[in-house]
Amino acid sequence: MLLTPPVINALKEPTSSAWVEQAINNIDTILLDHSHCERKAAGVAINLMFRYPSNTKLVRMLTAIAREELEHFDQVNDWLERRGIPFAPLAAPPYGGGLNAQIRRDEPNRLLDALLVSGLIEARSHERLGLLATNLPDAELAQFYGSLMASEARHFGIYWVLADTYFERDVVVQRLEELAVSESKLLETLHPEPRIHS
Amino acid sequence: MLLTPPVINALKEPTSSAWVEQAINNIDTILLDHSHCERKAAGVAINLMFRYPSNTKLVRMLTAIAREELEHFDQVNDWLERRGIPFAPLAAPPYGGGLNAQIRRDEPNRLLDALLVSGLIEARSHERLGLLATNLPDAELAQFYGSLMASEARHFGIYWVLADTYFERDVVVQRLEELAVSESKLLETLHPEPRIHS
Ligand SMILES: [Fe+2]
Ligand SMILES: [Fe+2]
Ligand SMILES: [Fe+2]
Ligand SMILES: [Fe+2]
Repeated sequence: MLLTPPVINALKEPTSSAWVEQAINNIDTILLDHSHCERKAAGVAINLMFRYPSNTKLVRMLTAIAREELEHFDQVNDWLERRGIPFAPLAAPPYGGGLNAQIRRDEPNRLLDALLVSGLIEARSHERLGLLATNLPDAELAQFYGSLMASEARHFGIYWVLADTYFERDVVVQRLEELAVSESKLLETLHPEPRIHS
Repeated sequence: MLLTPPVINALKEPTSSAWVEQAINNIDTILLDHSHCERKAAGVAINLMFRYPSNTKLVRMLTAIAREELEHFDQVNDWLERRGIPFAPLAAPPYGGGLNAQIRRDEPNRLLDALLVSGLIEARSHERLGLLATNLPDAELAQFYGSLMASEARHFGIYWVLADTYFERDVVVQRLEELAVSESKLLETLHPEPRIHS
């Protein structure tokens, strides 16, 4: 079994340099949005645990993800407090809604799509946090982003393994391919408001 | 400021010995229900973080609670796996729904009631896990319940401190009194199905 699927290959298109520039020039907004992303990542994992309480492997593996996302949430919030960025709501970019619209409503398709969409978001986060780690002028913040990258790649791997546990390999591969095309399309045009997934 | 409010005093009526007997005679069902309770406790804390994203103190303190509840969830699930208890959904007793019905829908009352209801559930969990710690014949399981008790008391304290942060002390005390009466009434008659809050 392929336990460490190649994260880079999951994404159809790499992030544009326009996003990197936008993010670096608006790092306080990116930090605030990142805080929301980590809380949402925990929320999505817990919602799946509520929806599929009998799937032992899913429950156990998503508990591990939720715990890590809450740890990241705490760490990002430390940065917000340190930089004096007030906690506040922030309008979400079209990315999340666009991906959710791809999740089919009938089971078991709903489970497959939910796992793969979460996996793709993790893969994209991995790529973008890596770009911040490489390009941020603030060395300490760059190092922080470097420390998060690896977990997000691992989270992609967990979602992939879960999909591969409950579905046939070729069904998973084909659907991941389709969803990855949608995911890249949603990021084709840079969203005017700076976000992790703008 | 009263930082460690007396947990015992929050509850109007102590748990009956009939519940202790029911729980000990159905410990596998209690463990499964307990797993659901820990996941729900994490879910409630995260939902409040979603609803009040600008309340820094609430966000930070509830993150700590959610992280601990997920750790408890993991620990209880270890027990389920060890004892070969299959993960499965379980019909909830009337307790949670009855308490939620007491939460007023208009802000800021909704926030106050949500904090106090969560606090009362924590206080009751503290009391009942303590009863399991004292009365379970299985020494190792009893010790496990003893190890959880203290966190649940601390969680009551956090919900109390948050209510005391965002509301006047006398308003908090009076509303806690009212909700505590409802909470005890909901447990007056033992629910026929064994649950942590039957
Ligand atoms: Fe994360
Ligand atoms: Fe993640
Ligand atoms: Fe707990
Ligand atoms: Fe608790």
